[in-house]
Amino acid sequence: MLVCLNVRPPGNPQGSCGEKGSEAVFETLKAMVKERGLGERVIVSRTNCLKHCSRGVTLAVYPENVWYAGVTTGDLEEIFRRHLQDGRPVERLRMPDIPWE
Amino acid sequence: MLVCLNVRPPGNPQGSCGEKGSEAVFETLKAMVKERGLGERVIVSRTNCLKHCSRGVTLAVYPENVWYAGVTTGDLEEIFRRHLQDGRPVERLRMPDIPWE
Repeated sequence: MLVCLNVRPPGNPQGSCGEKGSEAVFETLKAMVKERGLGERVIVSRTNCLKHCSRGVTLAVYPENVWYAGVTTGDLEEIFRRHLQDGRPVERLRMPDIPWE
Repeated sequence: MLVCLNVRPPGNPQGSCGEKGSEAVFETLKAMVKERGLGERVIVSRTNCLKHCSRGVTLAVYPENVWYAGVTTGDLEEIFRRHLQDGRPVERLRMPDIPWE
């Protein structure tokens, strides 16, 4: 699970994941993986820019190749329950365009 | 393309990608993508620990889900030519165990 933590200079029209709370998403995600004993099965990593700045916070999940847009800490419970446990991506959060599909 | 840039404290028996030259691998990879005009198609990102410390430098390529071990800057030309251009992973560098295959 890759969380974009890129920060752009203030005033950039696209904004950046870092300005939209990606640090909290990253830290919460890591804590949830640890709490649930998934540390051997799930890696949560921070990345630099994943090139969807205007739609951040961006979360990419591999090997499924599912990308989520506008992710907040409030979405993580649902991503865990539906995507990681039940194996069904959370459709309402999916990134609309991934050039590498 | 995800390059692990994790650094462990000196003396750790596993070592870490950071100690094995991952910063140079990351910077060289980024430069190669730029030089070859692949910036719109390939994202190179640094990550934190990808959990194969003893086999670093670790490079993971998605969406293919191909992981490489012991990568040096000298391997990148071959990875570009064979994997990215010809679509065939470089077998001699493949990580032997990926639990999420």
